Amino acid sequence: MRRTELECRDDALFDEVARDCAVGYLTLVTDDGRPRSIALNFAALGHDIVSHGALAGEKFALMGRRPRAGFTMVKEYSFIPSYWSAPDHACPATHFFKSVEIDGVAEVVDDPALKARALQALMLKMQPEGGHVPIEHALPMYRGSLARVGVFRVVTAAWTGKAKFGQNEPARLRRLFVEKLRERGAPVDLATAAEIEKSLG
Amino acid sequence: MRRTELECRDDALFDEVARDCAVGYLTLVTDDGRPRSIALNFAALGHDIVSHGALAGEKFALMGRRPRAGFTMVKEYSFIPSYWSAPDHACPATHFFKSVEIDGVAEVVDDPALKARALQALMLKMQPEGGHVPIEHALPMYRGSLARVGVFRVVTAAWTGKAKFGQNEPARLRRLFVEKLRERGAPVDLATAAEIEKSLG
Repeated sequence: MRRTELECRDDALFDEVARDCAVGYLTLVTDDGRPRSIALNFAALGHDIVSHGALAGEKFALMGRRPRAGFTMVKEYSFIPSYWSAPDHACPATHFFKSVEIDGVAEVVDDPALKARALQALMLKMQPEGGHVPIEHALPMYRGSLARVGVFRVVTAAWTGKAKFGQNEPARLRRLFVEKLRERGAPVDLATAAEIEKSLG
Repeated sequence: MRRTELECRDDALFDEVARDCAVGYLTLVTDDGRPRSIALNFAALGHDIVSHGALAGEKFALMGRRPRAGFTMVKEYSFIPSYWSAPDHACPATHFFKSVEIDGVAEVVDDPALKARALQALMLKMQPEGGHVPIEHALPMYRGSLARVGVFRVVTAAWTGKAKFGQNEPARLRRLFVEKLRERGAPVDLATAAEIEKSLG
């Protein structure tokens, strides 16, 4: 990473981004060298990523042969228009975000207990209000589905977090962004203003 | 793609997803074979993708050596909880979306006129209300910035679109989803209901 001022290695950032991104991007390389990013619902188990798909699908065949995998997730915050800080120049326009990029290895999960744990983690994230019988491998109602569904895990070897909230800008400008964001007032703007304020102390 | 019923090759899908996704995912492979997905603001010029970054940054060095590139963009629609269709089983939970995955070649753009055109397309997308002098390479105010900023293009060789709105479900169930989505009533739910209705004729 070139801009080290954006870097963030805090586990809390990882957990927050993994919780709040409904979709993440599994990255694999095909046999003929084509890089592919595949969008997925997912859950984090610690710093590993779990998700599911059709056992007969391409991604399961591919990760069996070529397990080196990336996983990227981005929590988008507010777009900052250029005219908040410049009367006529376009360049100051920017977009704030938090992100995590994982370097790891993808492996197909066969163990029914771990499959159930992964899928239950996914349900807990996507449907936290419940409304279903929790997925357990010992339950007869889930036995058939668990056997048929494909589950995989990206085992994280390393990860990089970033949080971009204008840290490289003068405090005067960051205070202006906070003011303009509160004025615009969408929920994402208020969340962005709160993040910028952390850097203002 | 295994589930061909989700496939969509309509240019209108490409244009819509490219317009509505603030962030897309550039996919490259590092020299040591690591697949990377890099999140970026971007614009589409036809079916090609343009974006920018620091000329001195890793991604520009990498795409110079290894130009084969992917680009993925996903427009998220509603999550459909399992209990809308099943009293106790978790499996019916699903998430609707439209997506485009590009297979192409990344190239660094050096021509100042094309750099300006790419950046102006990006501004037009991210800041459609204007509020800046349009970026043109002949304008002295932009000359220095245009020389310093890195611009790249992913030249699309092939792309695949998907639209998942329960097409594989019985019409009775899709009608139920429409009703529940309208009841829940968030803007994304109303948009999702409208998409499902297209398949109901």
